[in-house]
Amino acid sequence: MTGKWLTLLCVTTCLILAAVDAKKRFYQTFYIDVPLDHYSFAVNKTFKLRYLVNDTYWNKDDGPVLFYTGNEGAIELFAEHTGLLWKMASDLNGLVVFAEHRYYGKSLPFGNESLTPHNIGYLTSSQAIADYVDVISFILKDKASQERNPVYAIGGSYGGMLSAYIRMKYPHVVHGAIAASAPILQFQGLTPCDVFYRIVTSAYRSEDDRCSDNIKKSWSAIRNVSSTADGRSWISKEFKLCKPLSDAKDDIIVFKDWLIDTYTNLAMVNYPYANDFLASLPAFPVKETCLHLRNKSLSDKPLLQAIFRAVSVFTNFTGTAKCNDLQADSLNDLGTEAWDYQACTEMVMPMCTTGVYDMFDNAPFSEDDFTSECKKKWLVEPAFKLPLNEYGGKNLKYFSNIIFSNGLLDPWASGGVLRNFSESVVAIIIPEGAHHLDLMDDNVDDPDSVVQARAFHTDTIKKWIDDYQLSN
Amino acid sequence: MTGKWLTLLCVTTCLILAAVDAKKRFYQTFYIDVPLDHYSFAVNKTFKLRYLVNDTYWNKDDGPVLFYTGNEGAIELFAEHTGLLWKMASDLNGLVVFAEHRYYGKSLPFGNESLTPHNIGYLTSSQAIADYVDVISFILKDKASQERNPVYAIGGSYGGMLSAYIRMKYPHVVHGAIAASAPILQFQGLTPCDVFYRIVTSAYRSEDDRCSDNIKKSWSAIRNVSSTADGRSWISKEFKLCKPLSDAKDDIIVFKDWLIDTYTNLAMVNYPYANDFLASLPAFPVKETCLHLRNKSLSDKPLLQAIFRAVSVFTNFTGTAKCNDLQADSLNDLGTEAWDYQACTEMVMPMCTTGVYDMFDNAPFSEDDFTSECKKKWLVEPAFKLPLNEYGGKNLKYFSNIIFSNGLLDPWASGGVLRNFSESVVAIIIPEGAHHLDLMDDNVDDPDSVVQARAFHTDTIKKWIDDYQLSN
Repeated sequence: MTGKWLTLLCVTTCLILAAVDAKKRFYQTFYIDVPLDHYSFAVNKTFKLRYLVNDTYWNKDDGPVLFYTGNEGAIELFAEHTGLLWKMASDLNGLVVFAEHRYYGKSLPFGNESLTPHNIGYLTSSQAIADYVDVISFILKDKASQERNPVYAIGGSYGGMLSAYIRMKYPHVVHGAIAASAPILQFQGLTPCDVFYRIVTSAYRSEDDRCSDNIKKSWSAIRNVSSTADGRSWISKEFKLCKPLSDAKDDIIVFKDWLIDTYTNLAMVNYPYANDFLASLPAFPVKETCLHLRNKSLSDKPLLQAIFRAVSVFTNFTGTAKCNDLQADSLNDLGTEAWDYQACTEMVMPMCTTGVYDMFDNAPFSEDDFTSECKKKWLVEPAFKLPLNEYGGKNLKYFSNIIFSNGLLDPWASGGVLRNFSESVVAIIIPEGAHHLDLMDDNVDDPDSVVQARAFHTDTIKKWIDDYQLSN
Repeated sequence: MTGKWLTLLCVTTCLILAAVDAKKRFYQTFYIDVPLDHYSFAVNKTFKLRYLVNDTYWNKDDGPVLFYTGNEGAIELFAEHTGLLWKMASDLNGLVVFAEHRYYGKSLPFGNESLTPHNIGYLTSSQAIADYVDVISFILKDKASQERNPVYAIGGSYGGMLSAYIRMKYPHVVHGAIAASAPILQFQGLTPCDVFYRIVTSAYRSEDDRCSDNIKKSWSAIRNVSSTADGRSWISKEFKLCKPLSDAKDDIIVFKDWLIDTYTNLAMVNYPYANDFLASLPAFPVKETCLHLRNKSLSDKPLLQAIFRAVSVFTNFTGTAKCNDLQADSLNDLGTEAWDYQACTEMVMPMCTTGVYDMFDNAPFSEDDFTSECKKKWLVEPAFKLPLNEYGGKNLKYFSNIIFSNGLLDPWASGGVLRNFSESVVAIIIPEGAHHLDLMDDNVDDPDSVVQARAFHTDTIKKWIDDYQLSN
């Protein structure tokens, strides 16, 4: 459960890590006062929302606003990490805007006290998109500029969901959206809970079925070895755990979840070129991981030693990590606590494993357990059905001008839109793509499918602009 | 100022009065728990929202849900007063649903304490339409019925605005809307503030220009006569005021506003047949009123005596009223206090008179005065721009399947949609119609234009149903 939970948090933040060493881009930073609550007058409070702007390329006469709908992290990381938007700005004479999501980065309504159960309640997608509408209205202050300059929302992962949502709810403000790797169908009743981890499994199995078989075998190896104090001590040493495993049952669960998260992260960022994320990674890191898991004859301790070498591709590729801290929240600066809250309220994405169609143990999703954890931690009940009512679930044919792109290597494709719903609500499949690779900078090692996807995005916005100018 | 204020309140409530003696219709009453706040998790409270249902005509296999989006009053009054919806149900095998607007009727989140400044903050259009989505989701519980039974929103005046709004924001839930006499453009920056009272004036001038001229002259007559204590006493007696006018300046303002409201109400309900509203009215009450204002030679006291006879068409047509209480809020049971709050927050509809193009004194709209009154009374600041951002202002081409109907006799046509915005966002003009006459029961004295409008509404919903069934 915790493992799925952590993975859930990781919907985009894992990728944000990539930004740390990414090429810096120039932008001006602004703050705008937005209401804490856009949908009632019960609360008068406003707070400062941050957004970044670059107008180098902008043709104010009729150039578009390319608006990144920030997701769960500090906005500069997305700004440095979404190369496509910058390239589009240059191609389309567009204004670059990256708006920060409330309760993340520096857009904290209650400063350091923002994430208390008492203060965090206004962290919702609908409030966030209303913030973005305020930013857009401020940038395009006068009626003339509103008529001249169309606005396109662009986002990846949860940010992609927000791009789709803002287009759905404010088609008069946002004239089209590119929603990359946006799992808008990863909700109860829309997608079976086991699909996500089936795709994780497939990333390994398609690389080498000995790899997924060994991972699958490893869970019983962990059970066997960890059943004694000596075994737990051995695991702690072999896996270089900063804090040794105790005999508490939870310790083993945390250890397994750490492994599951590592496999999942590797699948998400299974990019075709070396990248220097928080953990430096080689090109095709899943392939690299599986090189350590080709021996079919291993079991128990020798198997776990191989598993350690495999996950070290993610946790210690540079060889400089001193120990592995299972409890450390390496994503702490990136808003995982706030996302945890969102996952407990409206972004409830049920996940499970079967042990049959995936390489994990059988772990059903329990609505009751999930609910009681959220109640305990945040004093809230998950709103399982909210996204269906609010954003339409699969009833996407009623909307227009949205591109949903998904890489088939990405576990989040499980909740992605993989077919066209209408002439202008269309799905782009990137067979060789991991998590929103299409939003990133061009790279010589890009597969052709992602090159084509990026071209499609830009061409479609060009077409939308033409349509917009014709109708105004 | 107060006069415009009161008129503002009267956007639909005046008409509700008509329901009192209207034919009773059969329905079952239900209550559903809805969240006080749909857009945050800061508040856990729910409350019971009332809705009425009649399934006599409903074909559950594929019949539509005809959903009245309740406005500012007790819902049974609309149910008894919107004959067209019942007729459509019979014609289209539809389910009749009338949902009550939060903070009105019996849908009071805090019981008798609902209208305090502390508790009233969740009275907003966006919360109301989210309530309605909850009602619809509850009625069409399972996926199969959601796919089989399309939903059409129908409403008049503010209820018509809500019909349009729910279609705009939830096109996956509501598949079309009939927005009758819905002044969705009566907001700052969309419609000049003097149009409303120009239409009121036109109702009288087109009847008889001596009538509007005399009304115009009456304001200086009031000034002249009320300048002395004797004159005020005379007015108090002639107009049978329950409470005599004092020398306070406000008293004269309240008196004038009462007259303005009366002229406005008469214009709104200028129906072609006698009706038994709170004040019983003859057919074409404006014509009746003007019969008393044909003498061009009157001034001061004789003119005011004629004015008294004229407004008595509205205030005392039956001759049974004992005195006229200028302060009495005759609409008290119909939610005028709550509407007052809405008019101070997001439903800010600036009104003014020029004294040039209308039959009133020059009275500009002052944003500052309006704001300070709202701050004083409700501790809120008006959100002048909210409806533009939230509901698109004139950018209606981005939406679909909405009929906006307006009667040209109705002052609220000032903020109505009077031209087509797209193939499916269309305007219906009813030259001989007053305030949402097209939603009412058939009457032998209906002008042909309203008969045609009703047929158009029904035919359009038939077409929408066909389209819906074809695409599902």
